[in-house]
Amino acid sequence: MPFVRITLAHGRSLEDRRAMAESVQQALVETAGVPANDFFCAIHELPPEDFRFDPSYLGIARSKELVFVQIVLNAGRTVDVKLALYARIAEKVGQRPGLRHEDVMINLIEVPRENWSFGNGLMSYSPAP
Amino acid sequence: MPFVRITLAHGRSLEDRRAMAESVQQALVETAGVPANDFFCAIHELPPEDFRFDPSYLGIARSKELVFVQIVLNAGRTVDVKLALYARIAEKVGQRPGLRHEDVMINLIEVPRENWSFGNGLMSYSPAP
Amino acid sequence: MPFVRITLAHGRSLEDRRAMAESVQQALVETAGVPANDFFCAIHELPPEDFRFDPSYLGIARSKELVFVQIVLNAGRTVDVKLALYARIAEKVGQRPGLRHEDVMINLIEVPRENWSFGNGLMSYSPAP
Repeated sequence: MPFVRITLAHGRSLEDRRAMAESVQQALVETAGVPANDFFCAIHELPPEDFRFDPSYLGIARSKELVFVQIVLNAGRTVDVKLALYARIAEKVGQRPGLRHEDVMINLIEVPRENWSFGNGLMSYSPAP
Repeated sequence: MPFVRITLAHGRSLEDRRAMAESVQQALVETAGVPANDFFCAIHELPPEDFRFDPSYLGIARSKELVFVQIVLNAGRTVDVKLALYARIAEKVGQRPGLRHEDVMINLIEVPRENWSFGNGLMSYSPAP
Repeated sequence: MPFVRITLAHGRSLEDRRAMAESVQQALVETAGVPANDFFCAIHELPPEDFRFDPSYLGIARSKELVFVQIVLNAGRTVDVKLALYARIAEKVGQRPGLRHEDVMINLIEVPRENWSFGNGLMSYSPAP
C-alpha cells in the first residue's frame, strides 16, 4: 500500500536508483508493518536545475545528491512509528547506495484505507469501521 | 477538480496515453459526479527500471504494462462511490487502450474544497460550511 | 516545509522555470508564514501531449503555457491565508516569468507536522499537541 515517489537530480547509476527503492522498502517493512511484497515505487530523475532546494534549511547541509522520498500510505501510523521509519530510511539508504544522511528528505501523505485499488477494479482494503 | 497523475513505463503510443487519460476522466464523470470539462491530467513516463512494483501483491498478476493512476480530488465521496469509480476506471481503460484489469492501480488523495485555484489567483470552490 | 511540485509542458527556458519556482516561494513566504530558506521545489516538464487540461473549465481561458503548482504543506492555514496565497502566486508568476494569470493552477495537499523529515533521519517538526 505505500506508494513511494522518489525525486532526485539526474546522474545516479541504475544500480544506485534500484538500491534507493529497495532500501526505502526495507525500512517500511522493518518499522511500519508493510508486507515485503507490498512494493511500489516510481523514481523521477530531473535535470539538476529543476530540483531546487535550500542547502542548509534547519541546519542540515544538503548536497546535490539530495533525494526526496514522498510516501503515500494508510493513515494510522503513530508518531513513534514515523520516528522509527525516518531513522531507518536514512540508515538504509546510507548503507545502500551510500547516501549521506543529510541528503535524505522524507514526506508522508496519509490516506484512508478505502483509497486504494491494486488492480482488477477492486477496493483493496476494507474501509476502517 | 480532480487532478489525475498517471505514472507508467515508457513504451505506450501517444494514442494509448491519450486513451488512458480520457478513459479515467470518463469514469470520474460517470461515477463521481465530475463535470466532463473538469479534466486535468499529467502523464509521467518513466524508464521501466524506475517504475518498480511487485508482480503479485494481493494475488494480482501485474505485467510491465502496469499503470498507476493517482487522483487528487475533493473529500466527501462515499465508499460506494469509490467502489464504483475503481470498477469503472478498470472497465474503461480495459476498453481503451485495452489494459488488462490487473494492470490498473489506483490511489485517491482527498483534499478540502478550498484547496484549489483553477486560475486567476482565485479560490475556485467555496469552503465547506 | 512546503514541497512544491510544478508540472508544465516542455518548452519554457531554464530562466523561466527558475523564476516560477522562486515566485511561488516568494508568495509562500509573504502570505503563508514560510521561512525564506524553507525552499524545496521539483519541476516536471512533460511532452505537451502528456499534459492534458480543459481550456475553459470554470470560464477561465487556459493556454498551452498552463502551469500546475501542487504544494504539500502543513495543515492549519486558514481559508483567508489560502485566498491570499493563491492571489499572490498568480501575481508573482505573472511578474516573473510573466505567466498569464489564467495559466496558473494551484492545489494544496495538507499533512500533519510530524510527516516531514528534512534530513538526518529526524522528524523535523514536533507533532501538534
